[in-house]
Amino acid sequence: MSIGLKNYSLKNERENRINFDYSAGMPVDPVIVDEMIPYMTTKYGNPSSLHSFGQEARVALVDAQRRVAKLIGSTDPEREIYFTSSATESNNLALRGVALRNKKRGNHVIISAIEHVSIRNAAKYLQLRGFKITILPVGEDGIVDVNFLKDAIEPGTILASIMHANNEIGTIQPIEEISSVTQNEGILLHVDATSSTGKIPIDVARSGIDLLTIPSNDLSGPKGVGGIFIKDGTPIEPIIFGGGQQRGLRSASEDVAAIVGMGKAAEIAERRMGSDGKRLTRMRDKIMDSVSETVEGVSVYGHREHRLPNNAMIGIFGVEGEQAIMELDKNGISASTGSACASKNLDLSHVLEAIGVNEVERYGTILFSLSRWNREKEVDRLLAVLPRIIGELREISPIWKFRDRLEEFYAG
Amino acid sequence: MSIGLKNYSLKNERENRINFDYSAGMPVDPVIVDEMIPYMTTKYGNPSSLHSFGQEARVALVDAQRRVAKLIGSTDPEREIYFTSSATESNNLALRGVALRNKKRGNHVIISAIEHVSIRNAAKYLQLRGFKITILPVGEDGIVDVNFLKDAIEPGTILASIMHANNEIGTIQPIEEISSVTQNEGILLHVDATSSTGKIPIDVARSGIDLLTIPSNDLSGPKGVGGIFIKDGTPIEPIIFGGGQQRGLRSASEDVAAIVGMGKAAEIAERRMGSDGKRLTRMRDKIMDSVSETVEGVSVYGHREHRLPNNAMIGIFGVEGEQAIMELDKNGISASTGSACASKNLDLSHVLEAIGVNEVERYGTILFSLSRWNREKEVDRLLAVLPRIIGELREISPIWKFRDRLEEFYAG
Repeated sequence: MSIGLKNYSLKNERENRINFDYSAGMPVDPVIVDEMIPYMTTKYGNPSSLHSFGQEARVALVDAQRRVAKLIGSTDPEREIYFTSSATESNNLALRGVALRNKKRGNHVIISAIEHVSIRNAAKYLQLRGFKITILPVGEDGIVDVNFLKDAIEPGTILASIMHANNEIGTIQPIEEISSVTQNEGILLHVDATSSTGKIPIDVARSGIDLLTIPSNDLSGPKGVGGIFIKDGTPIEPIIFGGGQQRGLRSASEDVAAIVGMGKAAEIAERRMGSDGKRLTRMRDKIMDSVSETVEGVSVYGHREHRLPNNAMIGIFGVEGEQAIMELDKNGISASTGSACASKNLDLSHVLEAIGVNEVERYGTILFSLSRWNREKEVDRLLAVLPRIIGELREISPIWKFRDRLEEFYAG
Repeated sequence: MSIGLKNYSLKNERENRINFDYSAGMPVDPVIVDEMIPYMTTKYGNPSSLHSFGQEARVALVDAQRRVAKLIGSTDPEREIYFTSSATESNNLALRGVALRNKKRGNHVIISAIEHVSIRNAAKYLQLRGFKITILPVGEDGIVDVNFLKDAIEPGTILASIMHANNEIGTIQPIEEISSVTQNEGILLHVDATSSTGKIPIDVARSGIDLLTIPSNDLSGPKGVGGIFIKDGTPIEPIIFGGGQQRGLRSASEDVAAIVGMGKAAEIAERRMGSDGKRLTRMRDKIMDSVSETVEGVSVYGHREHRLPNNAMIGIFGVEGEQAIMELDKNGISASTGSACASKNLDLSHVLEAIGVNEVERYGTILFSLSRWNREKEVDRLLAVLPRIIGELREISPIWKFRDRLEEFYAG
C-alpha cells in the first residue's frame, strides 16, 4: 500500500486571502509538515517503550529538546525543556505548578496587568486557593516599572510572572532589569515568551529567567504542542497526573510528531529571526505610519520602539473594531480586534484598560499581526482599502458625529 | 510556491517490523493524515475568530464533534463533546473537574483497582486535597463486582470512575450493570473508554454514562488530542485556565488539524469496528491458544470472553518480561511487558496485583496489543519465534530451575 498525498501549497491561501491575523493562528510551514509526517505514519513509537522502535522516538524527542533549547539559550535540554499541549498549558504549569509546590515558602505571586488571559485566570485560580496576587501596573506604553516590582515584593513572595512581549500591543519588557530584581530578592521569575519567541532574541541563562513559556504555532510549528523551559532545580509540581512521562512533570504519551515539528520550527526561527525581523519591522511601520498619517483620529498603541516586529495595533476613533474586521473580511483581509485567542469574548481588553485607553476608544481597535508569510504588496492592498472602510463606517457612526462633545466629556 | 510531499506508506514499516505493541502508540492512518494537512497548511484559522477564515475552522471543529458523538452515542455533539490534549488529560478533567466542582455535595470518589495510572494519580491528587478515595477490588478475571460498588456508596459519594476495558488485561466491565447502580444512587459515572472506543460498541445515552474519556491515537488518529463526552448539565470545572475556549471548559486555541484527524478516526472506527473486531479476535485467540497449548507454564490474564478483541496478555513463568521483549525486538517484533504508557517505570503492575497475580509471576508478563494494521502472517511469525525465546531464557533462569520449590513456597 502506497498512498500519494496531494501536493499542498500555501500559494492559493496567499493569493485569495490576505492574512494580518497571524496571532490567531499560523500555517504550519510545509517544510515542517514534511518532517512531522514520518513520525505519524511510520516512526510512531512511544519514547517510553523499551524496544528499539520506541528508542527511535526517544532520539527524535531529545533532538527537538536540543533545537528548542538552542533558540532560547538553555544549556541543558534534557533537564530543562518540557513539552505541553499549548502555551496556555505551559503558563498554567508555570504559575500553578510553582505556586502550589512552594506554598510553604510563601503565598504571594506577582503578575503584570497585561499578562495573557491564561496567566490571569491561573492567578485567579490560585487566589481562590488562598494565594495573594499582586497585579503590577504598566505605563501607557505598556512597560512594567521595575520600581513597582521592587515595592511589591514581600517576605512571602515566591514568583513573579512577566511576559516578554505583549500579544495585543506588542510592547517588549525590559526582562534583564526585571530579573536583576527577582534574583536580588530571591524570588522565581516566569516569562511568557509566547508572542516573542523566534521574533526577538532571548537567552534564559544570560537573562536570569527561571521558567519560560515557549510557543510552537507562533513559530509556524504545529498547534497542539507548546514548550516550557524550567531551569534545572526549580521547585515545581505537575498539573496533569498520569504515567509520569517527561521526568514526572508532564504525564501523557508524548506527541512525538508535533514535538519534532516544534523542534524544526525552533530551528527555522533561529536561522531566520534576523532577516525576517527587518522585513516585518518595515511592513509594521508602514502600516502604523501610513494609517496614522492619512487618517485622522488614529492612535498607535504600545511602545513605538520596544515593540514586536510583527505587531501593529491601532485605535480608530468612532469606528467599532468588529465592524471594521467584518468589512476587511469582505475585502479578503483578515485582522482582529485585539486579544487573539478568544476574540468572540466581548469583554473589552484588559491590556488596553491597563495602558489607560478609555472605554469608547477601546471599541475601535484593530490588531494587524504579521508573519514571515506576509508580503509587501499585501500591506499595500490593506492601505488601499482601510481608509475607505474607516470613512464609510464613520459616516454611520454616532460617536464620530458627536466626537467634539465626547472630547469635552472626557476632558472634564 | 508549491511543495510536493514525498509519498508515504506504511508498507516498509510493516515489512521490516512486526508490531504487537500498538497500545504504546498507533500509526496515524494515511487517509487521516491526508485529511489533516489542509488544516495545518491553508485552513489554519482560529475557530474563535470573527472573520470567515476563522469560521471555516469552526465548521471543521463542529463536524469532528459530530463524528465523535456518533461513534459513542451522544445526541448533542456541540454541548457534549470536548477536545483535550490526550486521554490522560480527559481522565484528569473528569475526575478532578467533577470532584472539585461538587465538593459541597460530598467528598467521596470511587475508582476501581485496575484504572489507568492517570485516574489513580488524579485520585491521589484529590486525596491530598481532602477527598476520600475508595478503590474497588476486582475478581481474578478483572471484573468489578457491582455489589461491592453498591456497598461502597455513601451519602457523600459524588462520582465513580470505572474503565470500560482494561489496557493491560483487556477485561471489559459490565458498564450497564454499573450504571444502573450509579443512576439509582444518584452519583455520577465516569467511564475511561481509552482502550475500548472503536473496538467494541458503546452508547453513552443507553448505558447511562455521565462522562466518557475518548482516545484519538488508539483509533489510529493523531496523538496530542483526546476527547471527552460530558452529558449536558453535568457539573464540572476546568483544569486548565485561559481564553475560555470550548464553552469555557477547556482553554487554549483548538488544534483543529488534530481534531479533524480525530473526527475522521472516529468515522473510520465506526465503519470498520465489526469486521476488524472479528479479524482481531481470531488473531488474539490464536496467540493466546497457541502459546498456552505449546508452552508449559503459561497463563492468560484477564477474562477470556469479556475481553478486548486486540488484547493478548500472557504470563510466562520463569522468564523476565523485559528480557523477552528485548529478545523479540532482536527478531524484529515489538511487544511490551504491560502498562503501555510508561513501561520504563519498573513498578510492578497494579492491575496484575489487583487480579491476584503473585510477585514472581508479575515479572514474566508479555502484552501483545494488536491493531487493524496487523496481518495473520505476523501472528504466525510470532508463534514461530516465541517458544524458542522462552526456552532459551528459561535455560538461564534460576526461577525456572527451582520452580518446584517456589510452588511449594507459594502453596504454603
